[in-house]
Amino acid sequence: MALRACNQSQATRNGLKEKVLTLDTMNPCVRRVEYAVRGPIVLRALELEQELRQGVKKPFTEVIRANIGDAQAMGQKPITFLRQVLALCVNPDLLSSPNFPDDAKKRAERILQVCGGHSLGAYSISSGIQLIREDVARYIERRDGGIPADPNNIFLSTGASDAIVTVLRLLVAGEGRTRTGVLIPIPQYPLYSAALAELDAVQVDYYLDEEHVWALDVAELRRAVRQARDHCRPRALCVINPGNPTGQVQTRECIEAVIRFAFEERLFLLADEVYQDNVYAEGSQFHSFKKVLTEMGPPYAGQQELASFHSASKGYMGECGFRGGYVEVVNMDAAVQQQMVKLMSVRLCPPVPGQALLDLVVNPPAPSDPSFAQFQAEKQAVLAELAAKAKLAEQVFNEAPGIRCNPVQGAMYSFPRMQLPPRAVQRAQELGLAPDMFFCLRLLEETGICVVPGSGFGQREGTYHFRMTILPPMEKLRPLLEKLSEFHAKFTSEYS
Amino acid sequence: MALRACNQSQATRNGLKEKVLTLDTMNPCVRRVEYAVRGPIVLRALELEQELRQGVKKPFTEVIRANIGDAQAMGQKPITFLRQVLALCVNPDLLSSPNFPDDAKKRAERILQVCGGHSLGAYSISSGIQLIREDVARYIERRDGGIPADPNNIFLSTGASDAIVTVLRLLVAGEGRTRTGVLIPIPQYPLYSAALAELDAVQVDYYLDEEHVWALDVAELRRAVRQARDHCRPRALCVINPGNPTGQVQTRECIEAVIRFAFEERLFLLADEVYQDNVYAEGSQFHSFKKVLTEMGPPYAGQQELASFHSASKGYMGECGFRGGYVEVVNMDAAVQQQMVKLMSVRLCPPVPGQALLDLVVNPPAPSDPSFAQFQAEKQAVLAELAAKAKLAEQVFNEAPGIRCNPVQGAMYSFPRMQLPPRAVQRAQELGLAPDMFFCLRLLEETGICVVPGSGFGQREGTYHFRMTILPPMEKLRPLLEKLSEFHAKFTSEYS
Repeated sequence: MALRACNQSQATRNGLKEKVLTLDTMNPCVRRVEYAVRGPIVLRALELEQELRQGVKKPFTEVIRANIGDAQAMGQKPITFLRQVLALCVNPDLLSSPNFPDDAKKRAERILQVCGGHSLGAYSISSGIQLIREDVARYIERRDGGIPADPNNIFLSTGASDAIVTVLRLLVAGEGRTRTGVLIPIPQYPLYSAALAELDAVQVDYYLDEEHVWALDVAELRRAVRQARDHCRPRALCVINPGNPTGQVQTRECIEAVIRFAFEERLFLLADEVYQDNVYAEGSQFHSFKKVLTEMGPPYAGQQELASFHSASKGYMGECGFRGGYVEVVNMDAAVQQQMVKLMSVRLCPPVPGQALLDLVVNPPAPSDPSFAQFQAEKQAVLAELAAKAKLAEQVFNEAPGIRCNPVQGAMYSFPRMQLPPRAVQRAQELGLAPDMFFCLRLLEETGICVVPGSGFGQREGTYHFRMTILPPMEKLRPLLEKLSEFHAKFTSEYS
Repeated sequence: MALRACNQSQATRNGLKEKVLTLDTMNPCVRRVEYAVRGPIVLRALELEQELRQGVKKPFTEVIRANIGDAQAMGQKPITFLRQVLALCVNPDLLSSPNFPDDAKKRAERILQVCGGHSLGAYSISSGIQLIREDVARYIERRDGGIPADPNNIFLSTGASDAIVTVLRLLVAGEGRTRTGVLIPIPQYPLYSAALAELDAVQVDYYLDEEHVWALDVAELRRAVRQARDHCRPRALCVINPGNPTGQVQTRECIEAVIRFAFEERLFLLADEVYQDNVYAEGSQFHSFKKVLTEMGPPYAGQQELASFHSASKGYMGECGFRGGYVEVVNMDAAVQQQMVKLMSVRLCPPVPGQALLDLVVNPPAPSDPSFAQFQAEKQAVLAELAAKAKLAEQVFNEAPGIRCNPVQGAMYSFPRMQLPPRAVQRAQELGLAPDMFFCLRLLEETGICVVPGSGFGQREGTYHFRMTILPPMEKLRPLLEKLSEFHAKFTSEYS
């Protein structure tokens, strides 16, 4: 203390003070946060793009960002109807233009009618515009074969991430051995690990079964929760279905088993269902946790606490930039739900253009509407191409020696496992890098292909993966997959 | 513990389990959060609106929400140019329409050019689109008379609130007597108290001087920080200028004194400057903390850490619903700044339509552009009307016996002090309400006027205030002010 005071006064004499906020004094929980999807590899990709623009010679002409599920960045065109209605909402002068279909105008008027001052520029109530929450409820009812959804249990959000973090913020409590533990799948989408690190909650890993198309096994859940009870209080279980980064679609039987497990072990369920429209594999079908839970009847139906998340960023529309999303809570304690409303009110409201967009997604044109045919054609074209790309990724990777890829049943990613030679692993360790990070960095430098190493999502010790989106356009995807496989072969022989 | 286990197993025998997430088990920090601007009074206002729609008889025909700075909800029209460009960005098919001015089209093309896939629907990088950060930097340079601004120090955000909470999240550390203390003004905008409660940081109050137009007095800052050192580690100082809810505009001398104080006491400065365009009083002028800090020269200029916040929600545009904002950091430690980038990346990116809107706000039409004349006329009309309304509020309230109102030099609120008779105070206490909350609830029930009690912002013990926006249209504002003053007189005589 004396030394520190002395240093300080010396520094002051030189006219220089230590910063108030440094790595040593900042929030230690924030320091622990990691987020691979936009980590060092993506920063390097940005630099490479700049170098290319400045004319620096590279062994490639463009960087392909296959690191993030961002369909429109990869060239997917927005759905016409969505953008027509939004433009009308943004600039209502266009309502008198003959260049917009009548149903688009009606939809815009319907949305503006319930906006403050009939404008997207006013705040909405914090849980989101009531009419849109009602539309979301009806969407859920249609999706779930008529099981009722209550608009008061639906909260609009700034993308699904915002809602997920809000629910986690409610759940975190305790200290030391009573700290909240949250079960998350490994591999996981790193929003979960990042949020838990910042909230100083305990991340409890359960491993998906790669040998069985990344199935979720209740015995593994049981192992994880039992072990965790030694050092924390497990209170929540996160499930991502369809899986990110793993692409599996859970069976109904699996979901039932998970619900029974959560009920027995007294765990709040978080179901990340943002890829519910992205199911490609024959025989695979999306079952919502809400629907399965309800159909299981008592004691689960009326009691098991659940939050289900969805967004306008994925699906066939891919409107990531608008940050529209929602959460539906089921069986949440009424007083806690009020606390959630309060918590959301501090940030005022989710972006209103994103709310409007979400409304169109959950309430698309009906068959009798003038925009229906075009809407449906555009939607089906996107989903059909995604299905073809999912199949292609699996096929090309599985033809490559040393790479093995589970079927991409849903979502937007392939997550192949690759063999890395021991000398490459050793070289990576010398460089202080995870072996698959070393591979991905080399891949980026030599081919311009940007993918995220499996270590950013979590994987079994000694296994190596990468996550690659299936979003590049078909004519680019095949050469990309082949280039990647070739690079892996070259890398393997270089270090063998 | 044994009792609890017994209760549980009994509950299980009945087929009913306790909820996992209850008021008792939830995050205790979240429970402590309060946010008056959208608190119980606003929920009641929503109910009253519903009752009116259902035909319930009330002593008024509409609820006037003067509780929140939401210009467009109060009928202010969006600025034409902003919405034209945004509509073009949302639906680029309109770029071929003859109904949009050329400069609007050029601006839309310029924005789309730098969006992923040339679409608002792609994610941007997490700190915001680079071109827009550059435009913000040039805006700051113009505002500050040429003092340089570095785009790399600018981070776009989901409204200013998001950026404020992000910087506070970085600052929070320690436990017990080493917990981070953050100085905030009283009265304050309750985002600060809410964020500090949730982050489990120590709120350190400093009182603004109501007798001197809510001036910030460094002697009071000194008292607050000295006292706080007994129980926490004060590390940051928040200043709101122009003031919310207080409406004062700080003098240059005051800002210099605050900067010297922060430097001496080693406090990170947070300058909430979202009302920088909203200055009305003759003789008042906005000085940015960045400009004053830079002009003070060494040792302050190169060292004092500062974060300055701005948004697209206030000003003349009032585009709250788009949630556009930014923070500029000055003299922040480079490694901490990288941590901030990482933290922001977890939430992917601020809404892209809000980023585009912010771009137009910081980079409005130039005098040579076809849209300039109309843009300028619309902007000036809004600001002139706001200035007239600020004066009117002050004048009408000061004519009312028992109400005293400081000049509204800037921002969007009047924050008058009112006398409440002892019997009213006693009645409120019997009802478990803050006396000014009791007043505001009665006001709402009897007149439909929704304002926020001073207790929601903080005030000196035994004084009572309310915050009312000056945003209702002129023809409604005068009757509103008079009705409110009359109600106060009636309320006073009722309890005298």
